[in-house]
Amino acid sequence: MIQTKTLQELADYLGGTVRGDAGLVVNGLAPLEAAGPDKITFLANPRYAAKVAETKAGAVLMAPGGEAYGRNVIELANPYLGFAKLLTLFYTVAHPPLGVLPEAVVGTNVNLGEGISIYPGAVIGNNVTIGDRVVIHPGAVIYDGVVIGEKSVIHANAVVREHCRLGKRCKLQPGAVVGSDGFGYAPDGNSYYPIPQIGIVVLEDDVEIGANAAVDRAALEVTLIKRGTKLDNLVQVAHNCQIGEDCMIVSQVGIAGSSKIGNHVTLAGQVGVVGHVSIGDNVIVGAQGGVSGSLAANAYYSGSPSMPHKEWLRAMGVLPKLPDMRKKLNELEKKIAELEARLVKE
Amino acid sequence: MIQTKTLQELADYLGGTVRGDAGLVVNGLAPLEAAGPDKITFLANPRYAAKVAETKAGAVLMAPGGEAYGRNVIELANPYLGFAKLLTLFYTVAHPPLGVLPEAVVGTNVNLGEGISIYPGAVIGNNVTIGDRVVIHPGAVIYDGVVIGEKSVIHANAVVREHCRLGKRCKLQPGAVVGSDGFGYAPDGNSYYPIPQIGIVVLEDDVEIGANAAVDRAALEVTLIKRGTKLDNLVQVAHNCQIGEDCMIVSQVGIAGSSKIGNHVTLAGQVGVVGHVSIGDNVIVGAQGGVSGSLAANAYYSGSPSMPHKEWLRAMGVLPKLPDMRKKLNELEKKIAELEARLVKE
Amino acid sequence: MIQTKTLQELADYLGGTVRGDAGLVVNGLAPLEAAGPDKITFLANPRYAAKVAETKAGAVLMAPGGEAYGRNVIELANPYLGFAKLLTLFYTVAHPPLGVLPEAVVGTNVNLGEGISIYPGAVIGNNVTIGDRVVIHPGAVIYDGVVIGEKSVIHANAVVREHCRLGKRCKLQPGAVVGSDGFGYAPDGNSYYPIPQIGIVVLEDDVEIGANAAVDRAALEVTLIKRGTKLDNLVQVAHNCQIGEDCMIVSQVGIAGSSKIGNHVTLAGQVGVVGHVSIGDNVIVGAQGGVSGSLAANAYYSGSPSMPHKEWLRAMGVLPKLPDMRKKLNELEKKIAELEARLVKE
Repeated sequence: MIQTKTLQELADYLGGTVRGDAGLVVNGLAPLEAAGPDKITFLANPRYAAKVAETKAGAVLMAPGGEAYGRNVIELANPYLGFAKLLTLFYTVAHPPLGVLPEAVVGTNVNLGEGISIYPGAVIGNNVTIGDRVVIHPGAVIYDGVVIGEKSVIHANAVVREHCRLGKRCKLQPGAVVGSDGFGYAPDGNSYYPIPQIGIVVLEDDVEIGANAAVDRAALEVTLIKRGTKLDNLVQVAHNCQIGEDCMIVSQVGIAGSSKIGNHVTLAGQVGVVGHVSIGDNVIVGAQGGVSGSLAANAYYSGSPSMPHKEWLRAMGVLPKLPDMRKKLNELEKKIAELEARLVKE
Repeated sequence: MIQTKTLQELADYLGGTVRGDAGLVVNGLAPLEAAGPDKITFLANPRYAAKVAETKAGAVLMAPGGEAYGRNVIELANPYLGFAKLLTLFYTVAHPPLGVLPEAVVGTNVNLGEGISIYPGAVIGNNVTIGDRVVIHPGAVIYDGVVIGEKSVIHANAVVREHCRLGKRCKLQPGAVVGSDGFGYAPDGNSYYPIPQIGIVVLEDDVEIGANAAVDRAALEVTLIKRGTKLDNLVQVAHNCQIGEDCMIVSQVGIAGSSKIGNHVTLAGQVGVVGHVSIGDNVIVGAQGGVSGSLAANAYYSGSPSMPHKEWLRAMGVLPKLPDMRKKLNELEKKIAELEARLVKE
Repeated sequence: MIQTKTLQELADYLGGTVRGDAGLVVNGLAPLEAAGPDKITFLANPRYAAKVAETKAGAVLMAPGGEAYGRNVIELANPYLGFAKLLTLFYTVAHPPLGVLPEAVVGTNVNLGEGISIYPGAVIGNNVTIGDRVVIHPGAVIYDGVVIGEKSVIHANAVVREHCRLGKRCKLQPGAVVGSDGFGYAPDGNSYYPIPQIGIVVLEDDVEIGANAAVDRAALEVTLIKRGTKLDNLVQVAHNCQIGEDCMIVSQVGIAGSSKIGNHVTLAGQVGVVGHVSIGDNVIVGAQGGVSGSLAANAYYSGSPSMPHKEWLRAMGVLPKLPDMRKKLNELEKKIAELEARLVKE
């Protein structure tokens, strides 16, 4: 079903301002090059401003004050955010509430909210609470005592183990695991005695966990991921970690036990963080970085072991020159020996 | 059931030539050391040529012109490929078509090919097309609108999300995820607004995806993996990537969004590739390499950040000597200061 | 249900000795700071010895000879192990044998032990042997011909492929995959011919596999993980590997094909090991290390490529100073040229 909207309706929805024909009707969103007259397009990156002159789009979403080249425009402080919101408006459909479908398995004493969908092959344990409008896809497994907040989406074959708690609007991609046992063993001299992991995982509101990522339950208390934080695919969070609000934890990052990450932190792909360290607010760690100690807030680090990003860049620039440096050093050593010899002779 | 074959039958099957007793019957394949007179063995690596003299095998598969030590031989240009084909011939059995088994769940408007097998616990959504002789193992979940080409195999608990398309003879190992949401968020100042990921994933023919690997759907268009490319376990492919034909993407590699990999590329284990770069045809990147920019074709790179492999090898050779170099540098500095002082005095 | 125990009962259970009121009753375990008089606490790390003076706990588990500050004490050579055992005693409950629950699917010729639990949505193939008191959680898939030893636990959506064998007391975390096809292909000039992987995986007793980890079946014989070894989440073990007893393989480690790891080896997070190498007993490899050749026993290595840990530490200490070293080297070169010029003139 195609929706149509006037520019004025879109501007009202986004909190923007129309310049041009406010009554123009569009039925979707497309990139600058691909959009036709029935579509709105967007200019998120000023680098592409010149393309506005050539687009065939009916209208352009852009930042205030941009050159419109005579186009109909919706001005908006954050056009990239506007693009995302229009994608939602035009191309996503609210999930129809299907109830508990026949081949789903639901345990005893389960509290089901309104407007939920539980698909065939999903298995819900006992004493579980499922909030309103939650969707649980096929093959997802919810162990006993779990709480899932409203509008959360659990994709196929994701697992939430016993007593873990998810906030509102959380999303687990397929295969994500929440609440697996922490990797804790007490050495008994020869082998390892498994330490029962009796804590839980708490995901606050708007937390998303990527495909086949794993978040371990705490040994005794809580592994905590705070509001708005997003974990990409194949991320590992070990037991007792705490991750702050609105962090971006990119694919294949691993965070060892009991480490504490601040708010608005970005860990780029494949970063590793050792256990029992703290990372301050607003830190960025570059891809493949190895965080082996605590990091002060508001800074950008790279490398393994990690160091300030600029320092790392300079060091890496020298790396390919090491063989030459070594050769030169040996040559200089010889020359100095010769100079010394000559001075002694004289 | 044991199969028996004459050497002539095997030579015909492989496209090789018999030297020796073409009527000799064998019933299987075994390594040089382990094979008895009822088995054929193979010499793939010339390093082990001397072992042919001692093998008890009834026959040896080898490259043309090798020393046969009086054995019956099938000559073949690529004996390793011949070994693989004989493994298939002697030890694999065509999957019997079982149809849709009782405990499988199949949605509405599903187009089922001939000779398929859909196991208990598999869940197929609506409007799905399943090609001839496809096998879908227990717990696999196929969302709405998916197309799966003939002879593809979907192992247990793998997931293919909505509208993704798989070619012929694709194979998903257990837990593989195709079509999870790309990791795309628009910052709204404080937190992150999820950008709907409305694109799909297309796997062309003969693509294989390893256990618990993840391939994200595109934001708007297609994440594409071309014919013949193999992804190992736990590989991550982010949204909008394009991977060429016949690539080998080894375990735990991560490729960030919108990067484009050529044909016949090998990325060794744990390599990371940043977003929005291109890697040319026939490139090899060594294990744990970090590709932070585009790479020209037909070359071998290593290191993080990556550089030409030989350059990296030389630089790494110097790394352990850095402390000595630093010490020597400081000594030379002193000596030069002394020399300068002496020259001034004189 | 709360259990109560006297200190004497606990000391007998742990093999320790009471100093103080052996008849004192406790009902649980808590950290030094949090424990009340009805709890026993523990001092595992001597650094916190002074906290014993302030704890409100009814008793303290500690090493022999520690300062008791007048508390009731159970002396035990390994108080951390004692803590783990008391967690088990007070906070874990034996899994009740539930039998085969209605929505589970069990194939033909399956040998079920006593006291087992097979949950809804689990799928067991044909010719499988399930030992006594095994627990198989929802969505787990056990292919044909698998053997699972007594008291093993298979968590939700884990997969064991055909003919693999698990020992006693093994544990698979959710999403773990055992027996996926090894990554083996024979190049045929242009593309890759898949080599049938006809071997299996054997996990000996007390092996644990983390969430979404993957252990590939051997090409021809056995991928072997020996008694007591623990794999953390998202670990990759390629075909034909052999891992010794009581190893700790931390999250996101990848071990390439045919490598052989000794006993009591620790590979820290994100370590990569290339194929066809050996690692000796008692080796430790530090986080993100890249093992590119065989490693001698009883040593600690770090870095990529890996080197002795101390050597790596010293080299890494110099890394940030490389730009300064390079500058100084160029300065010294000039100074030497000047000195040489002056000496020539004189």
